Amino acid sequence: MKDGALELIDQRKLPGSVEFIKASSIDEQVECIRTLAVRGAPAIGAFGACSLAQAVDRDEDPRIAYSKLLGSRPTAVDLRNCLDMMIEAVNKGESVIDRAAKICSDIIEKCRLIGEHGARAIPDEARILTHCNAGALATLDWGTALAPIRFKARSGGDPFVWVSETRPLLQGARLTAWELLQEGIGHRIMVDGASGHLMRKGEVDIVITGTDRVSMNGDAANKIGTYEKAVIAKENDIPFYIALPSTTIDRSLPSGNGIPIEERGAEEVLELWGDNIAPAGSKAYNPAFDVTPAEYITGYITEYGVFDLDGFRKIVLKDHSS
Amino acid sequence: MKDGALELIDQRKLPGSVEFIKASSIDEQVECIRTLAVRGAPAIGAFGACSLAQAVDRDEDPRIAYSKLLGSRPTAVDLRNCLDMMIEAVNKGESVIDRAAKICSDIIEKCRLIGEHGARAIPDEARILTHCNAGALATLDWGTALAPIRFKARSGGDPFVWVSETRPLLQGARLTAWELLQEGIGHRIMVDGASGHLMRKGEVDIVITGTDRVSMNGDAANKIGTYEKAVIAKENDIPFYIALPSTTIDRSLPSGNGIPIEERGAEEVLELWGDNIAPAGSKAYNPAFDVTPAEYITGYITEYGVFDLDGFRKIVLKDHSS
Repeated sequence: MKDGALELIDQRKLPGSVEFIKASSIDEQVECIRTLAVRGAPAIGAFGACSLAQAVDRDEDPRIAYSKLLGSRPTAVDLRNCLDMMIEAVNKGESVIDRAAKICSDIIEKCRLIGEHGARAIPDEARILTHCNAGALATLDWGTALAPIRFKARSGGDPFVWVSETRPLLQGARLTAWELLQEGIGHRIMVDGASGHLMRKGEVDIVITGTDRVSMNGDAANKIGTYEKAVIAKENDIPFYIALPSTTIDRSLPSGNGIPIEERGAEEVLELWGDNIAPAGSKAYNPAFDVTPAEYITGYITEYGVFDLDGFRKIVLKDHSS
Repeated sequence: MKDGALELIDQRKLPGSVEFIKASSIDEQVECIRTLAVRGAPAIGAFGACSLAQAVDRDEDPRIAYSKLLGSRPTAVDLRNCLDMMIEAVNKGESVIDRAAKICSDIIEKCRLIGEHGARAIPDEARILTHCNAGALATLDWGTALAPIRFKARSGGDPFVWVSETRPLLQGARLTAWELLQEGIGHRIMVDGASGHLMRKGEVDIVITGTDRVSMNGDAANKIGTYEKAVIAKENDIPFYIALPSTTIDRSLPSGNGIPIEERGAEEVLELWGDNIAPAGSKAYNPAFDVTPAEYITGYITEYGVFDLDGFRKIVLKDHSS
């Protein structure tokens, strides 16, 4: 937050160039979320909270800002959870700027704890497969899926990361690889379809991804392609973990079947950076997320610790009743 | 075969433009195979046979041509099988041009029969998922995986095809979509990682792919990503078929573990049409194929009919002893 505007790295430009953009109105901020200048469930939540704080600070109607921001992307629930916290602050007459700052620092601390706890689930010299980007870029700092890997690397555990490129928008190849490169963590990028081959050949010890929304029964939405990796991991007896702060839990949703799956424009599949890759006349289907049922998830890496489904439910319930 | 050269559609240029290239020497022909100007297991086999015929016709040593051609791509076995047939013709003093022409017409007829038999395995109005390109472009005519779909469409069965784009070289989005468009068959392109989501949501009735080499126990190598689709199909009770002419069987190989998997250049993953998609400094791993164990394969669509593993083994053994 700076001079009444939000300044952020434009993730659409990475890794080609590191450019900052400013967004000073709700409409500009919604556009940043919609076009993925800012992305990743926790980062969108924090960005939404700051956007709403500034709108209130400008004496705009918080309900209009809330509704515009909430409609920007449907799948990740952190946005709604963070906006609800902001409305609570408004209703209580608290400082919205302070509350937004608190939400941001909480997310950073939760991700740090995810890293600390999750690193203990990773064997030394493990070969970790991840999908999409659940790194610092997606969360303000540390990341969710990448936080345990960072912790492991910093404690000398020498992790190696298989980076699934993540079509259509290549968040793995563009963003996760870029973060790992900054940190000097060994990695290789491969096409999304190569994950199964790697797992079957014994080249993967553990899979860790982020998630955009977890329902009360432990089902998890994440970037399209995640469900496949979870099924293949189970088939090959490889543990599959998701990493999440508790703001990614949807306490209103009994099962993952209710998670709305965002369908994005066909051009994301049919074109790459303006060039057609498919014949004119062919159409595309572009779901941005899929849902992995809890039965495929070995463990949940949270700010409270790493849990299997039973433990996760206890935490969820405990947190829920507090 | 024309004026001592082979003329072919340059598949690297599709669907942007339909260009023909000529290859008049073994070295040029090897380059066409290596760079995927011609691709697809049966098409490479036919192209190799014609290349060797012309080399013999030019009084070149067939053993040198054989060895250069055989080394061009390692995974598909049709090339070796077709080249062996050519060497047999040389040894018997038969016309090599006639033998190459016979190999080509046999492949076309086998694919036609694959279409005829396979169409009976496809329900009316089925939604078929395929991966990579196993169409006319991959086989001279009809295709393997696409042949049953063409037959079904021509008999009014109204098939719909989910086209998995097939990174890194996008043979699905570029070539399969192009073929389906020519034929007026309804289809949608999606990213490779969306297959699982579609299958879990009940949007896929049957999966059909081609294959590059089938071992005697029924394991099948095919484009990277195929194994994942087979596992997910089984998990969701969706039949998974592979379509192949008998020239794709490796009678020397007891199991798929022995199939060599071609690793291609990292630049195919890291760049798209000359543009970097990953940060400079990141490396890639680029296996072009994977192996699907027989336990995930519901049926084998061949020129003899459609068989489960038992039936396929009987055919293989019968054909082998003849």
